[in-house]
Amino acid sequence: MYCLLLKTRLRPGSLDAFMDAMRVNAAASVRDEPGCLVFDVLQDRSDPDLVWLYEVYTDEAAFEAHMRTPHFLASRPLVDPLILEQDCIEADSLALNPTR
Amino acid sequence: MYCLLLKTRLRPGSLDAFMDAMRVNAAASVRDEPGCLVFDVLQDRSDPDLVWLYEVYTDEAAFEAHMRTPHFLASRPLVDPLILEQDCIEADSLALNPTR
Repeated sequence: MYCLLLKTRLRPGSLDAFMDAMRVNAAASVRDEPGCLVFDVLQDRSDPDLVWLYEVYTDEAAFEAHMRTPHFLASRPLVDPLILEQDCIEADSLALNPTR
Repeated sequence: MYCLLLKTRLRPGSLDAFMDAMRVNAAASVRDEPGCLVFDVLQDRSDPDLVWLYEVYTDEAAFEAHMRTPHFLASRPLVDPLILEQDCIEADSLALNPTR
């Protein structure tokens, strides 16, 4: 599976606005896209303005499809202005163990 | 939820041995520990000797319990010698969206 870890530094004080938009995008991605298996959002304990996105797709084509979805496109104008910096870590799954 | 991202640099060429032990530990953690919700292992595409562990626990007490389990303790002598360096990122979940 194709995995992404997005180390995302936000404009100070913009977490709530960021999450208002990202929560909708993340939930819709997993709910509406067969190729999106996980979309988790975490707040780094070392820095309240540092957020990690953890996304798992069946393959890269599924991720490209994700970027054409209405919910992804609708989130961009809301979240892009709030992001100061974003490091994109691409990875492949070696072992996935969810329970939920 | 209490989340961990462990950026783990392995001794070159030790991925297979590492995964032989870590696959068992990761699966047992989610299967046998009510407080362990996710234990995923990823290989960074930028560096084959760089592995990320993504772990989600109900709380820190569940993580501490994890470190006392037989499967965790059994994995240590197998994986510790293979790890050159490990950065521990502690985080709190803001949104968790799994489908599996």
